Amino acid sequence: MAQVIKKRQGRPPTMENPRGRILDEAAALFARDGYESASLGSLADAVGVTKAAIYHYYPNKKEIYEAIIVQTLEGLLSHVTRRLDENMTPSEALSSFMSAHAEYFEANYHGFVTMLVGFGGMENSAFIVDAQKIRRNYEGKLRNIIEHGVADGHFRQVDPSVTTRAVLSMLNWMVRWFKPGGERSAVSFAEEYCDLILGGLRLQT
Amino acid sequence: MAQVIKKRQGRPPTMENPRGRILDEAAALFARDGYESASLGSLADAVGVTKAAIYHYYPNKKEIYEAIIVQTLEGLLSHVTRRLDENMTPSEALSSFMSAHAEYFEANYHGFVTMLVGFGGMENSAFIVDAQKIRRNYEGKLRNIIEHGVADGHFRQVDPSVTTRAVLSMLNWMVRWFKPGGERSAVSFAEEYCDLILGGLRLQT
Repeated sequence: MAQVIKKRQGRPPTMENPRGRILDEAAALFARDGYESASLGSLADAVGVTKAAIYHYYPNKKEIYEAIIVQTLEGLLSHVTRRLDENMTPSEALSSFMSAHAEYFEANYHGFVTMLVGFGGMENSAFIVDAQKIRRNYEGKLRNIIEHGVADGHFRQVDPSVTTRAVLSMLNWMVRWFKPGGERSAVSFAEEYCDLILGGLRLQT
Repeated sequence: MAQVIKKRQGRPPTMENPRGRILDEAAALFARDGYESASLGSLADAVGVTKAAIYHYYPNKKEIYEAIIVQTLEGLLSHVTRRLDENMTPSEALSSFMSAHAEYFEANYHGFVTMLVGFGGMENSAFIVDAQKIRRNYEGKLRNIIEHGVADGHFRQVDPSVTTRAVLSMLNWMVRWFKPGGERSAVSFAEEYCDLILGGLRLQT
C-alpha cells in the first residue's frame, strides 16, 4: 500500500513506524540546528505531517529529545550484543565491540550527536531511568570483556573500570570530529584504536 | 591599594585583571546554567559590577564565550609546554603531557566545560583564528612526541595522527564525567590512561 500523507490533517497520518520517523528527523534537525533552535514546526515539515500529528505521538520537544537518546542507546546495545560471541578471546571480543560501536555510530550519526554533543542533560520522564539502565548494561558488557581478559591472564592486571572508560572515551569523542561520508570509515578508526589499546605504544623488547 | 568596586557606576570599575575575572565568572556561569540561559545581568552580579562595565570589555555574550575558549587554550598550551623537557624519553614526555593536561583541566574546570561540552561552535571574530592556531600548536606538540618515539624505535610503528587523537579523546572526554573535588584527581586518571596507552592491554609473552 502506498503511503498517503496529507498535510493539514488533524488525525495522525498513515505512515509506517511514525515514532521512529519522527525521532530520525528530529535527530537530524537537532544535529543541524541545535536543540534550542529546532522548532516542532520545522520537524513537522521535515516529516511531512502537521504539528498536531507530532503532538499525537510526543507531548513536547524535550520528550522527543529524550526518546532519541533511549532509541539510540537501545539500538547500540542490541547491535553490539549481536556481534559478541562467547567463543571469542578477550582481544577478539574487544575488537568486535569497538568496531560494532563505530559501525552503529556512523549509521546513526545524528542520534549520536543529539545524545552526546550535550544539548543539556535529560530532565524528566521515565526515559531517564531507561537510558541509565541501558547505558549501565552497555558499559557492563565492555567491562565484562576486560574483567574476563584480566582474570584468565589474557590481559595485564589493569583496572577494568578505568580501561572501560578509556575505550568509551575514544569511541564517544568521535562524535566531535568524525563526519560520515569521508574517506575513512568510523570502523577503520576504531580498529586502529583497538590495536593501540591492545598492543600499547611502547615497543616491547 | 584596596579594590573599590561600586555597583551602578557607568565607568569601568577598579579591579585587577578585569578581563580575566569576567571570563572566569562567565565560564562558571555557562558551566552551571548553560550558555543560552546565562544572562549578562547575572554575570555582572557575579563579578560585582554593572552590565555597562561588562560591555566596556566585551561587546556581547558570544565574544565572552569565544574569549573563554582562547584563554583556556592559551593557558593549557603554556602549562603543558612548561612541563616538557627535551631530555625526556618519548614515554616520559607522553606521561608528562597527559598529566599536565589533566592538572590544568581540573584547575580550570569551568573553562574546559565551556570549551568542550558544546554550547555551539565559535562563529565570528578574530578569536576563531587564534583558537585554531593554538589548538593546532597544542596537538602538534603531542604528535611530535609520538613521531619522535616512532622514529627512534622507542614506540611501535603506529600512526601518529590517530594515536594523538586517541590520547586527546581520553583526556577531553573527562569533561563529560569527571567532577573536581572528588576522591581521585584528574591527574591520577591521566596516569592510568598513559600506562594503558604505553603498555597496552594484552599481556606480552
